[in-house]
Amino acid sequence: MKVAFQGLRGAYSEVALLRHFKGAEPLGMPFSEQVFEAVEKGRADYGFVPVENSIAGGVGVNCDLLLARPVFAVAESYLHIEHCLLGSPGAALADVEVVYSHPVALAQCREFLNGRHIRAVPEYDTAGAAELVAGRMDKKEAAIASKACAEAYGLKVLAEDIQAVKGNFTRFLAFQREKEVPKGLKMEKTSLAFAVKHHPGALLNCLKRFADHKINLTKLESRPIPENPFEYVFFVDFLGGLDDAQVKEALAQLQFDARQVKVLGSYPLGRR
Amino acid sequence: MKVAFQGLRGAYSEVALLRHFKGAEPLGMPFSEQVFEAVEKGRADYGFVPVENSIAGGVGVNCDLLLARPVFAVAESYLHIEHCLLGSPGAALADVEVVYSHPVALAQCREFLNGRHIRAVPEYDTAGAAELVAGRMDKKEAAIASKACAEAYGLKVLAEDIQAVKGNFTRFLAFQREKEVPKGLKMEKTSLAFAVKHHPGALLNCLKRFADHKINLTKLESRPIPENPFEYVFFVDFLGGLDDAQVKEALAQLQFDARQVKVLGSYPLGRR
Repeated sequence: MKVAFQGLRGAYSEVALLRHFKGAEPLGMPFSEQVFEAVEKGRADYGFVPVENSIAGGVGVNCDLLLARPVFAVAESYLHIEHCLLGSPGAALADVEVVYSHPVALAQCREFLNGRHIRAVPEYDTAGAAELVAGRMDKKEAAIASKACAEAYGLKVLAEDIQAVKGNFTRFLAFQREKEVPKGLKMEKTSLAFAVKHHPGALLNCLKRFADHKINLTKLESRPIPENPFEYVFFVDFLGGLDDAQVKEALAQLQFDARQVKVLGSYPLGRR
Repeated sequence: MKVAFQGLRGAYSEVALLRHFKGAEPLGMPFSEQVFEAVEKGRADYGFVPVENSIAGGVGVNCDLLLARPVFAVAESYLHIEHCLLGSPGAALADVEVVYSHPVALAQCREFLNGRHIRAVPEYDTAGAAELVAGRMDKKEAAIASKACAEAYGLKVLAEDIQAVKGNFTRFLAFQREKEVPKGLKMEKTSLAFAVKHHPGALLNCLKRFADHKINLTKLESRPIPENPFEYVFFVDFLGGLDDAQVKEALAQLQFDARQVKVLGSYPLGRR
């Protein structure tokens, strides 16, 4: 089974997808758009993308693509992020003077770095930073990335689990082509996107439809509508499957105040 | 007057702040945290950060810092983003085979690039990509960045305004130390953050307080609470100053359903 993800070998997305899809063949792509294209064109069986991190927040580009493309989310999955400091094989922690990583990872490890007077330099992603360090093999340089990157790039783990906040989770969605959603899929949670109509209180009314049907929202996020600067699409997740009677009723009533309603997926609850 | 921003010379943030604060001295910092520190420690008179782009969405890290740090937003400002293709001085558009930029900028210019078979390579930021291209001066390489970067790094503008969606705006907030907010500041719009109490319908009730007082929300965004994975802080902007009677009443009533309410700023309306 082929599963497309955005990133290089050892990226957290790859780690997460290999945990979720045992024995899958991961296909790494430079851009998220290419992950969706691979699924749409049948080059991959599933796409697997992060939609939210418990510290950094929503991954906007992937939410936008789930809305725009003819795909449907069929599973959610959580990964506990444990950042490692990776250096060249001959290096010790005391040798490190500069560290490369994604700015979010650097921010999450700031206390560790400041305490050791290590200078932080932003890179595009964590696995890319590991690749960079592996290409130069300078004892003074290190990367913050997954443990999987140590093996992937021949680096040494100089320190483990170095972020300040320990509860660092990323939530991923696995999706298929809309047409290929399996019959009988267990649906416990649903992801939905909608824009609101142009009358006062429209958003309030939409949220009330869920409350009136005892549907518990687990996420509410706004994303811009590119064509209409500073208007928004709302992304909500709620407990309940698309096949629940209460959910069906709420969605039917949503039409009074919402437009462009799209169900992005409905899937079993992922375990943290 | 010294104004701190995140980024290198020629970054869109620098372009925007020089338009907003005529004759200011821009202080570029590698990380957003350092922009806030510079203001808090008095090394800069103002901080100036993007909070939202009309295509890419909220800039989470800056919203989080406005909430966490003892600062207050005193102005908003919009910049119309016009991406340029920048190459080495001897290059022509037909020479370009590879282009470097921030992934959001690359996505916004995808049609332009695909039509010319130019390969897109992600970099950490637009001005950094311009600096990279300037350091190598290879005719086959270009960057997507602001026009200001052409001058800053001695590059040639090969094409202007190359993004697909033309209405591409970024919204910035200028902030000061909380203690230094000028008396008599014109307040027409307010930015607020709050978490909701743990009872059903709490968010719905909060939004209703605004509607009941005829207060028009212009933004609603959720951001994670790092210590409580998958709980959220809500960031709202609304029309009305902190000195309006209706706003004061709504904020007083917000306490019934909200906790950790913080006014992030109240400021004159920025023009697009």
